[in-house]
Amino acid sequence: MNCQEFTTFLQEQIPLTAAMQLQTDFFSKEKIRLSVPLAPNKNDKNTGFGGSIACLLTVCGWSMMYANFQTQFPDAKIVVQKSELRYLAPITDDFYAVCQCTDIAAKESVCENLQRHGKGKLSLHIDCYCKDVLSATLDGTYYIIQA
Amino acid sequence: MNCQEFTTFLQEQIPLTAAMQLQTDFFSKEKIRLSVPLAPNKNDKNTGFGGSIACLLTVCGWSMMYANFQTQFPDAKIVVQKSELRYLAPITDDFYAVCQCTDIAAKESVCENLQRHGKGKLSLHIDCYCKDVLSATLDGTYYIIQA
Repeated sequence: MNCQEFTTFLQEQIPLTAAMQLQTDFFSKEKIRLSVPLAPNKNDKNTGFGGSIACLLTVCGWSMMYANFQTQFPDAKIVVQKSELRYLAPITDDFYAVCQCTDIAAKESVCENLQRHGKGKLSLHIDCYCKDVLSATLDGTYYIIQA
Repeated sequence: MNCQEFTTFLQEQIPLTAAMQLQTDFFSKEKIRLSVPLAPNKNDKNTGFGGSIACLLTVCGWSMMYANFQTQFPDAKIVVQKSELRYLAPITDDFYAVCQCTDIAAKESVCENLQRHGKGKLSLHIDCYCKDVLSATLDGTYYIIQA
């Protein structure tokens, strides 16, 4: 799946990502980057809406799980179990979320646990940037669960 | 401000809340309840989208701050500083977020700190329900900051 295909998948399957005008900038097993324009994601002060930021970061981690495991386990369900968000700086322009995960052992462990116990979990860190300023972070635990 | 006026305010000022078809069920200084239909807030498995849940809970706490402080401090800015979310059960129908805060001393302390130091903070707990099942929770720290 390339960036355009993943954008189409998200926008068709998850209506709120279409409303956010979410685009995929990178889509690989090691790095996911999703971006949104400010206009549909602004608040009453014309800065980035906290709810949009939370949503973008949450779906960025979900996308990393999807990129790594959904092809191998097409019937499994990916869910976020918990997340901790920190809002560091106001967002005044278009913004993006990036998640990098190169821990091959952790990913192999997810697959093993999914096959043995019906579910596997992965901890992911996601950063949010506006104009190259770190604006928010999310530390989340995501599960993939066999249907 | 009544429920309908607050819904109109949110949907006009924060476009994503219009896309979510967010409605205000209760709007008081002690209790805020905001609800959304499932359809615009579903994921690829036709259950509640984690990003929509995060967004709804985040804006519910923000609304509690707004209900308590915005009239008295119209120029101040309300922001979420950090939040911890837990996703407890899948959401299969329309859902709502509720925040209750009756701690008068804590609210007076916010006003005092805002006037003395230019900002005040309040910790809030928000619950998310679907069909009366607790589906997610948010513990958040919100600030009101003098412009």
